[in-house]
Amino acid sequence: MATPRRTSRDIRSESRLDVLHAVLVAGETTRNEIARTTGLSPSTVATIVGELIAEGIVAETKLTVGRVGRPTATLTMNAARGRVVGIDVAETYVRAVMFDAALNQIASVDDPRDEHVLDAGTVVEGIGSALDNLLRQGGVTRADILGVGIALPGLVQGVSGASGVVPHWNWDRVELVHLRDRLGLPLIVDNPLKVIATAELWLGRGRYCSSMATINLGTGVGAGIVLESRILRGATNSAGEWGHSLLVLDGRRCRCGRHGCVEAYVGAPGIQQTLREIEPGHPLADLTMQRDFIRAMADAAGLPDPDPAVKKTIERTAYYLGSALADLVAVVNPEIVTLTGWTTWALGEYLLPATRARLIDQAPGRAAADLRLEVSTVRGNIVATGVAAIALERFLTDVGLLTTRIPITL
Amino acid sequence: MATPRRTSRDIRSESRLDVLHAVLVAGETTRNEIARTTGLSPSTVATIVGELIAEGIVAETKLTVGRVGRPTATLTMNAARGRVVGIDVAETYVRAVMFDAALNQIASVDDPRDEHVLDAGTVVEGIGSALDNLLRQGGVTRADILGVGIALPGLVQGVSGASGVVPHWNWDRVELVHLRDRLGLPLIVDNPLKVIATAELWLGRGRYCSSMATINLGTGVGAGIVLESRILRGATNSAGEWGHSLLVLDGRRCRCGRHGCVEAYVGAPGIQQTLREIEPGHPLADLTMQRDFIRAMADAAGLPDPDPAVKKTIERTAYYLGSALADLVAVVNPEIVTLTGWTTWALGEYLLPATRARLIDQAPGRAAADLRLEVSTVRGNIVATGVAAIALERFLTDVGLLTTRIPITL
Repeated sequence: MATPRRTSRDIRSESRLDVLHAVLVAGETTRNEIARTTGLSPSTVATIVGELIAEGIVAETKLTVGRVGRPTATLTMNAARGRVVGIDVAETYVRAVMFDAALNQIASVDDPRDEHVLDAGTVVEGIGSALDNLLRQGGVTRADILGVGIALPGLVQGVSGASGVVPHWNWDRVELVHLRDRLGLPLIVDNPLKVIATAELWLGRGRYCSSMATINLGTGVGAGIVLESRILRGATNSAGEWGHSLLVLDGRRCRCGRHGCVEAYVGAPGIQQTLREIEPGHPLADLTMQRDFIRAMADAAGLPDPDPAVKKTIERTAYYLGSALADLVAVVNPEIVTLTGWTTWALGEYLLPATRARLIDQAPGRAAADLRLEVSTVRGNIVATGVAAIALERFLTDVGLLTTRIPITL
Repeated sequence: MATPRRTSRDIRSESRLDVLHAVLVAGETTRNEIARTTGLSPSTVATIVGELIAEGIVAETKLTVGRVGRPTATLTMNAARGRVVGIDVAETYVRAVMFDAALNQIASVDDPRDEHVLDAGTVVEGIGSALDNLLRQGGVTRADILGVGIALPGLVQGVSGASGVVPHWNWDRVELVHLRDRLGLPLIVDNPLKVIATAELWLGRGRYCSSMATINLGTGVGAGIVLESRILRGATNSAGEWGHSLLVLDGRRCRCGRHGCVEAYVGAPGIQQTLREIEPGHPLADLTMQRDFIRAMADAAGLPDPDPAVKKTIERTAYYLGSALADLVAVVNPEIVTLTGWTTWALGEYLLPATRARLIDQAPGRAAADLRLEVSTVRGNIVATGVAAIALERFLTDVGLLTTRIPITL
């Protein structure tokens, strides 16, 4: 009946992760600097750096700083340790990105998907061929790859690694074994919300606050939540499904089958529906591909004198988004909320001011008074980066440096 | 910039708290039994039990178990160590409860308040006189009291102990110093949502799951959230303000000033408004005291053939409550949700089945498939009990046994 306890071993593991993050974020750093940014003692830092160097994760170079004094050792991630792959499987595309072991992007392959073809066999083959193309493009073989991480939309269940469930895609189970056999590499699969939270934790704001939520705005929407430097996963790995919390009781039908979900208002198709309600015959109202629609909205919103229907759609969307964020802030009360995802990259600058105003107005008490709402600082494909970070974490777990429990490893 | 880190000292503190909880929950126990239920090693348990006995928190008696073998020491809380007081300041009453150091209730004083008189001076004096009456009734002096905990409605802010904000009461600041001077005892003040979460953590389901939410249903409504045996406080101690998350965008006006909050539908006045909408001239629709209304609803719902308007009000409230709980489950994804508060005690049995059905239907994916929804197992006044537990925690912190950071201590 006892809950899983955090042990001294976990604390050592967390300290190793902190040191690793410090090196990763700094690019180049020193033992003293790591001690300063992590709050760990210099002797703990020295021990951990030794362990990371021994495993070839961190590399050391010597250089002299200043005109006098002993040479100071500079530490960097050992980029040459191997390659890590992150694959972002979205409704509208598969993107496979290769990183070196310092999480620098090396190569990427982008396969548009027909967003209307959802069967498991097609998606698995799409992932497999994206990986093959990526390896070819990067000029590496499977032996160079430390691990592959795949972010699958939907509610990936099962902390013990049992199964994946992607209800939006009409799959009952992602055929994970099939996927593993097709790829032939150490594999982790995770929910995109946990993946973006991981990216924020490794590379974004998550290291520097006690609580944050990262909002993914795309076809679907959701929140990656970080509390005290840990990802909030929830009992069935479905924490953060804020996109399927209610905005309007008995409101618009959501593609999840329920009514009034946040996603039905601020997901890309929801934004298009808002435009359709405002002006049914608007030329952008009938674009059939979501990404074309969002791009066209951004172009229209960026004009000196935007089309009134577009302007009103942006205002209305910000009102919905701010209201829905206020709900999340009411329950979790984080220090920072960041926005990410392709809708953010396209429309974020137009949405942000009115969203912030509505959020502050709507959040209870002073919950949002000091809240920071900003666009995520994690650049590039945050999903591919985050899931590559989890794949690297799995590798570090396999070599005995971490005790992280990763939900689905294959 | 580094976040507060959990240290080995914190782990020792948590282990002490685990041992204390094990003794408290068991009533009578042994070192072996504690090791089994907490998952701590026998030697750690022995060390901690020694520390708790030395401080007079735990008491030891000897008895022989079985027909052969050495006598086994039985451990109990040392109830005689002193008294702890928990004060539940609600909109409609002030209840002061005296506990022994094993958190057994000894005496209680219940002062109905005029729910329409909200000024700080009146409330402070009401708390002070409730405490005086309680001491008289319990036959003890201030010297016997280890500490007093007070739960104040509203959003108590300030992790560093700065100020309390009770917006519903038109107070800008609870006059905490005034309160401390009036009481003349070591004091902690906390938000009722953190208090009920603490009660669940010390005495309810919270010890035995990795995540839970406890829903308080009364005049106001809110959620106490426990994640991995810790209270989710949030950046401004206002996490769990689920009662002021949206149920209906632009819906009913809430007494917080915003529109469509959960509280405006499932708080006691909200339930009465639902009845009023269903049958404006209903005899219960115009009762002016909330508690009279809720009691009358329970009486009416318990009849063999309930009044259709009452029945419909219960159904509608369960629909609202289940929908709003599904939102909380979508974001936090806890293992267990418990219901507590005076509306629960009165109407829980009538609300629970339909609430559960709506929750399962409305929660995304499988987030609610294995979720347990039940009435809290913490009996008596959960708010007074929870805040007394925090006062005891403060005492244990003062004597050096814990490292807990309690938001507002005076």
